[in-house]
Amino acid sequence: MKTPIFTDLVQTLPATVPFVGPETQERQMGHGFTARLGANESVFGPSPKVLKAIGNAASDIWMYGDPEAYELRNALAKHHNITMDNIIVGEGIDGLLGYLARLFISPGDAVVTSDGAYPTFNYHVQGFGGMLHKVPYCDDHEDPNGLIAMAAKTGAKLIYLANPDNPMGSWHNAQTLEKMIEKLPGGCLLILDEAYADCAPHDAVPPLDTSNPNVIRMRTFSKAYGLAGLRIGYAIGQADLIQSFNKIRNHFGVGRLPQAAALAALDDQAYLSDVISRISMSRIQISEIAKENGLIPLPSATNFVTIDCGKDGSFARAVVANLIKQGIFVRMPFVAPQDRCIRVSCGTADDMAAFAKALPIALQQI
Amino acid sequence: MKTPIFTDLVQTLPATVPFVGPETQERQMGHGFTARLGANESVFGPSPKVLKAIGNAASDIWMYGDPEAYELRNALAKHHNITMDNIIVGEGIDGLLGYLARLFISPGDAVVTSDGAYPTFNYHVQGFGGMLHKVPYCDDHEDPNGLIAMAAKTGAKLIYLANPDNPMGSWHNAQTLEKMIEKLPGGCLLILDEAYADCAPHDAVPPLDTSNPNVIRMRTFSKAYGLAGLRIGYAIGQADLIQSFNKIRNHFGVGRLPQAAALAALDDQAYLSDVISRISMSRIQISEIAKENGLIPLPSATNFVTIDCGKDGSFARAVVANLIKQGIFVRMPFVAPQDRCIRVSCGTADDMAAFAKALPIALQQI
Repeated sequence: MKTPIFTDLVQTLPATVPFVGPETQERQMGHGFTARLGANESVFGPSPKVLKAIGNAASDIWMYGDPEAYELRNALAKHHNITMDNIIVGEGIDGLLGYLARLFISPGDAVVTSDGAYPTFNYHVQGFGGMLHKVPYCDDHEDPNGLIAMAAKTGAKLIYLANPDNPMGSWHNAQTLEKMIEKLPGGCLLILDEAYADCAPHDAVPPLDTSNPNVIRMRTFSKAYGLAGLRIGYAIGQADLIQSFNKIRNHFGVGRLPQAAALAALDDQAYLSDVISRISMSRIQISEIAKENGLIPLPSATNFVTIDCGKDGSFARAVVANLIKQGIFVRMPFVAPQDRCIRVSCGTADDMAAFAKALPIALQQI
Repeated sequence: MKTPIFTDLVQTLPATVPFVGPETQERQMGHGFTARLGANESVFGPSPKVLKAIGNAASDIWMYGDPEAYELRNALAKHHNITMDNIIVGEGIDGLLGYLARLFISPGDAVVTSDGAYPTFNYHVQGFGGMLHKVPYCDDHEDPNGLIAMAAKTGAKLIYLANPDNPMGSWHNAQTLEKMIEKLPGGCLLILDEAYADCAPHDAVPPLDTSNPNVIRMRTFSKAYGLAGLRIGYAIGQADLIQSFNKIRNHFGVGRLPQAAALAALDDQAYLSDVISRISMSRIQISEIAKENGLIPLPSATNFVTIDCGKDGSFARAVVANLIKQGIFVRMPFVAPQDRCIRVSCGTADDMAAFAKALPIALQQI
């Protein structure tokens, strides 16, 4: 019998994945990683109060989550001093980026991002037939002026910018971003991915302006809050824009347990501060290990450090491969000329010791 | 500045939600429900072993879930005696239905379902511009021949059928469904939603045939397994069809904790059997309460009982409203002539006592 036919668009899509999971690599190697420093997760984990909240919520786990995520949005509104109508909760920033692509992108629509920026955003844009226009990094930073110019030139509907940036760890200050926002072409939405904002200096985060329909801010509980395993994030924006997600989203997609855990995480800002300190210390440790091995750590406002290995992409790829062989999970999600770098997530003292031991061997083996 | 413009399709979509959550109703009422019997959740909860697995997994909660859900798919493959390549794990059946609509539906494409069947499926189809063609129920059952005839007439790309059916609780046996599958028009995919299959008689579930590209089977951990609060489900189908989800899905959308919980739930089939017994007993109790009040319980192969109130939709709506006023959460997701019914999920002894107390009052108050 005739097989069901995919849409024209789906037929053009490659069977690609934005990221191979470390578990896949572990299965291929036949053993686990010693240190998991490749996905910018928070090895410091969530607050003990979160684990307690999860225990308490477990007896309610038979119930669907509140599709409005009312309590969490209410708490977030207070936390950010905005209203609930400016907040949408979703299945991580990844899930929300997918919804944004669906809301705005028809086949052929232009979208602007940096060359080497977040692959999952590109995946979602291509999944809706968007045409990606990539702007090179400028001195290892995303280039606000270049992005704006490209958006104006191509009539882009979306610009993606992560601040602080992944994978470079670099950042712009609020003033630079506010100038960029002023220059946004009409009809263009700036997706400001602030997954790492919790780790950044305060002056890297522009004040929230929920009256501006041309900017949406993306936040997550997967990074500094340590809840990647529950996959919950949120977006902040103008109320009409936020309301539009309700036309397409999976309303019951965020479970009751993730909502309860996120609420508890948000409530323990003292723990978050402590994690931020530990991240800062680990950034220093990674930087020192890099320098001891003749490599150049780049400044970072995130929970990882990007290390310039000083040579070309082949060299950096070899460093990563040799680290992985020694059980250190790291990644190299860069394109040239940033592919001279490797990216190392912050870790515990044990993780740092393992990395310190493995890096010189990885370099020697080349 | 000019506001960003949604796609032409999104501009046509209503700001609707498939279901209002009970939490929304509780906030409107200003108090909680005494008995939560409206969303076909499993009040019996998950296995104690699942709660233990969640506790154990909590220390890993800082890690993203395996995007391949390898361990869970491996266990499901053994459980169903199929291969992993025939299984995709997703954010509940709702999430997977959304992906199916996206894979197959372009604006204007025909889709066939029953009039009064699952609103969330309709929501997803409309969200991709599909044209819904609805076939009336036949003797309170979904009508396989009617669905096939409508699909042939409209050139439908998808047919949706839930077996056992929600909201009627009725079911067809495997033979009837196999005959329906034989008659599927070329190029048409049958989405067989088996969310309630765990509660059904064995002869209501056709053997799995993963060689057939025209049928996909939807299963969930949200019903009898008691894990609605973690939102995890899966689909079983022909390998190429299953692989196609990888072109569009949110690869890291299902967290580590839901995967661990589902694995533990699957592993405790003795507990599942026990829940199924308790569901059967509760169905009998609901039926008896209905009869004591002069109403007609319909046969059910699910974790709820649909009760024929014997009059019209206004009457049944009043019964529901009067139950809700007394703190009993029930729903009435029916269209005429099935809107003479109300739907009551199985519950604990306390839930049943609350329902038994409230129903006669609800009827008197009309």
